[in-house]
Amino acid sequence: MSLFEKHKDILDGAVKAIHARTFYAQYPEHPKAYGEDAGANGMEAYKTLLGKHYDELESAGSNGQIGDETSPYLNEPLGITYPSFEIKTLIDNSNAAYNAWRKVDAEERVGILVESLENIKERFFEIGYATMHTTGQSFMMSFQASGPHANDRALEAISMGYDELTRFPKNVTWEKPMGKISVTLQKSWYAIPRGIGLVIGCSTFPIWNSVPGIFADLVTGNSVIVKPHPKVILPIAIVVAEIQKTFKANGQDPNTIQLAVDTADKPLAKELAEHADVKLIDYTGNQEFGDYLETLKDKVVFTEKTGVNSVILDSMDDLDAAFQNLAFSVSLYSGQMCTAPQNFFIPQSGITVGGENVSYDDVVQKLKENVTGLVNHPKMGAGTLGAIQNENTVTRVNEASKLGVNVILNTNGVENEEFPNARVCSPIILEVDASKKDIYEKEMFGPIVMIIKTKDTNDSIAIAKEMAQKHGAISCAAYTTDKGVKQKIGEEMALAYTPVSFNLVGPIWVNQNAAFSDFHVTGGNPAGNASFTNPEFIVKRFVWVGHREIA
Amino acid sequence: MSLFEKHKDILDGAVKAIHARTFYAQYPEHPKAYGEDAGANGMEAYKTLLGKHYDELESAGSNGQIGDETSPYLNEPLGITYPSFEIKTLIDNSNAAYNAWRKVDAEERVGILVESLENIKERFFEIGYATMHTTGQSFMMSFQASGPHANDRALEAISMGYDELTRFPKNVTWEKPMGKISVTLQKSWYAIPRGIGLVIGCSTFPIWNSVPGIFADLVTGNSVIVKPHPKVILPIAIVVAEIQKTFKANGQDPNTIQLAVDTADKPLAKELAEHADVKLIDYTGNQEFGDYLETLKDKVVFTEKTGVNSVILDSMDDLDAAFQNLAFSVSLYSGQMCTAPQNFFIPQSGITVGGENVSYDDVVQKLKENVTGLVNHPKMGAGTLGAIQNENTVTRVNEASKLGVNVILNTNGVENEEFPNARVCSPIILEVDASKKDIYEKEMFGPIVMIIKTKDTNDSIAIAKEMAQKHGAISCAAYTTDKGVKQKIGEEMALAYTPVSFNLVGPIWVNQNAAFSDFHVTGGNPAGNASFTNPEFIVKRFVWVGHREIA
Repeated sequence: MSLFEKHKDILDGAVKAIHARTFYAQYPEHPKAYGEDAGANGMEAYKTLLGKHYDELESAGSNGQIGDETSPYLNEPLGITYPSFEIKTLIDNSNAAYNAWRKVDAEERVGILVESLENIKERFFEIGYATMHTTGQSFMMSFQASGPHANDRALEAISMGYDELTRFPKNVTWEKPMGKISVTLQKSWYAIPRGIGLVIGCSTFPIWNSVPGIFADLVTGNSVIVKPHPKVILPIAIVVAEIQKTFKANGQDPNTIQLAVDTADKPLAKELAEHADVKLIDYTGNQEFGDYLETLKDKVVFTEKTGVNSVILDSMDDLDAAFQNLAFSVSLYSGQMCTAPQNFFIPQSGITVGGENVSYDDVVQKLKENVTGLVNHPKMGAGTLGAIQNENTVTRVNEASKLGVNVILNTNGVENEEFPNARVCSPIILEVDASKKDIYEKEMFGPIVMIIKTKDTNDSIAIAKEMAQKHGAISCAAYTTDKGVKQKIGEEMALAYTPVSFNLVGPIWVNQNAAFSDFHVTGGNPAGNASFTNPEFIVKRFVWVGHREIA
Repeated sequence: MSLFEKHKDILDGAVKAIHARTFYAQYPEHPKAYGEDAGANGMEAYKTLLGKHYDELESAGSNGQIGDETSPYLNEPLGITYPSFEIKTLIDNSNAAYNAWRKVDAEERVGILVESLENIKERFFEIGYATMHTTGQSFMMSFQASGPHANDRALEAISMGYDELTRFPKNVTWEKPMGKISVTLQKSWYAIPRGIGLVIGCSTFPIWNSVPGIFADLVTGNSVIVKPHPKVILPIAIVVAEIQKTFKANGQDPNTIQLAVDTADKPLAKELAEHADVKLIDYTGNQEFGDYLETLKDKVVFTEKTGVNSVILDSMDDLDAAFQNLAFSVSLYSGQMCTAPQNFFIPQSGITVGGENVSYDDVVQKLKENVTGLVNHPKMGAGTLGAIQNENTVTRVNEASKLGVNVILNTNGVENEEFPNARVCSPIILEVDASKKDIYEKEMFGPIVMIIKTKDTNDSIAIAKEMAQKHGAISCAAYTTDKGVKQKIGEEMALAYTPVSFNLVGPIWVNQNAAFSDFHVTGGNPAGNASFTNPEFIVKRFVWVGHREIA
């Protein structure tokens, strides 16, 4: 049985799901679904990797060993090194692999790629611990985001790729009637991949944000070089190693995917991106480098950069339910999610709750109380916040109060009993005048919340829209019980190409985007030009070429 | 009955055809199919338009009347003027129209757009004469290319658009099981158009090359400003007028499409293209301006520029059949087609015909004989060549012999009995050494054929591929009876993203690309970044935005 036949059910289910966009998950998100011993075994396997050279990756032609990761929980280096390569070696390997992989047909590619996801699944716990101790996410988030959720996003890209690759027939007979005679051609269509794809990872979601580009490149026949963030390597290294092993086990060149590890001192991203043989670039990271990549000539570039996400507060039925939900959204992984809300727009006259007016000050107070209650909750606080990946984020939070703003709630260290050395800080809540756009128009990455007092909800909508159009937005949360207001928010934010989550309460948050259903980033505003996984994310990676022959 | 219901059969047939890619034509290509009197009536209607102001277009806010077209057949001005507009007026109109049109649902849009094609159909003969007397095409080519073939290409874009717009559900209930509870969201997806689209036309195929962009913009909810070539306005003016009238008759803003006529002295293309509100640009024309457009920031740009098309001669069964076919391809509309072959690669040892060697010199002689025979044919010659659109093309042909090449066949004036003042020149055939790439790597627009003597067929393939990769190619004709050679040509040219037509003989030519089946231009080499009509041509014109709400 071919791998395509072996995994046909998975593929069919996924293709059906991307079309239906109803709930679907191939990989269960709860750790318990993976067996009783999986957690302990995964922890053990993770510990085995520490303090030594990581030897699971292809390393022929390597020119050294580098690595410089530190756990935000332990404040200790992981002590792991990875094979490093000259750029020429990476490109030569990738070109050779491309010229074999591009000839492999879509069914065989899909079979091998789904097989690699099944192999990655076996290492979800290791990957979870690796993610936790590089990004600072809680274990649960690490497990879910880098394990099942990432695999689902990867499967989504594979499936959308398969859908596009099989959209037109491989061969047809074309017969044109011309009066008494007719002319007949045999026609064949080929989806020719672009070449080498470069996938540049970020420090907070090293797998979730990288696998859509990786698998979209691979399914369409391109080879891939993965350039992880120099401080967050291990999670994606395990993924790349599993893909390499799967390729090798199935007679394909393992260098079809390679890991290009670099250091902060000697970064490789720019040189790789500018190499003439690199035709595709997927990037998650800061605005500046993303903007630069988008200007590169003769490259197809997919970016997720930064955005300022808004919360529009107008009216609601249950103030506590809404604010518990929002407090969690701003606290989860200390606001280090690209989907985390930053700017809260509250009308100066307050909002309507269950038909009654609640004053602006009371609304602000409610947010403060809910955030304080969550972060100080002995069972919830530390786990929700996780740790801060980058010291610069702590500095940014600490200096935010000096911006000429009114501090509603200051940040403080939250004790993490399990990890006393963890780099932790709780959200800071600031009040900014609506006129001071220069302060709140920037993404303040991390647990920084801005409250902006507006004239009224129309003013809130107008500013939120303007922010999204000018500076980008990946999410927007809105609370309103008014049908007309809801309609307006939906339409105005859609014109800024920003998805809106209305009236979220309970265990679902604006931060979350589900594979097979939610497009992640729309690609229509400055927050990024790409979207997981819409058809455009796939079709730009290959070119339809049709040959024809007289029959 | 809605227009959508009225035209549902047309749409269903077209959607089925773009997926099957077998022969399909909604609009019959032969003039006879349109009734006995249609020709005479069309001629009469065309004559009525001459020498006066064209008053079928929306003209509110116009600032004058301009127009400067000359018939290449009569060497006389058409004497038609068109309303001109300030750019601000065009943009303001287009923004207002966009904000209405974007709210019209996909079914209603499709219904109105197919209705407009049905209205355009009523004017195919007028459009044919208008095309003939601006582009210099023969009447038959004018009729077909600007009439039924253009309408089929337009219908293809509408259908592919409809296919993409309805690919995902408008609304779904998403229910995520979470152990004992579940969370339910109502989700809605919106295909939000980009804004104003600018379509810049060319002087040789004013309708065929413009309607794919026009209808792709419109079907996805964008408004359109059409900027025709200042010397070739009337054909597309009739099309735009019919679309405007159809919009008006169906309660839509006629300014959803506008015609921005300019003059060579005061061109509008650059200023329009750079306007911040113009989000989409479709362009057919020279390399230089196309390259510039592709660099514009925050625009989605679709180009068809120039290419050097190759003929690879290796082996064949019937020398005469092949060379009759090729002679027609280089002579048709005097080589003023973007798909016309330019560079003929012939191995120095000659080619194999029916198992026998035919020397290089004999092959060259055969091409010369066939071209001479065709252009001097009393019934075929003048009609095949048509007239030369632009005086510069005549100059280019006349000066080509001074390039340091060997003249195999010089150009000469061919008498056109029907139009003694027609601007006509027959093909020039030049022999160039394979080492002189600087001569044959450029597109020599017009009836200029270069014969390049190569070491062998592998050398021919290598150079043809290099030309396509570096300078672009839209077509490639190859003749070989060898399976391995065919395989190699197919693979190598596919890597240069160039479609190959193998062994064409009889009434089908490499110049022709059929709607619903052939992708026109691949978008993968410097000849252009877009393709009529692949999914990418559609999906880049709108953005998927998903809103969700707690259920």
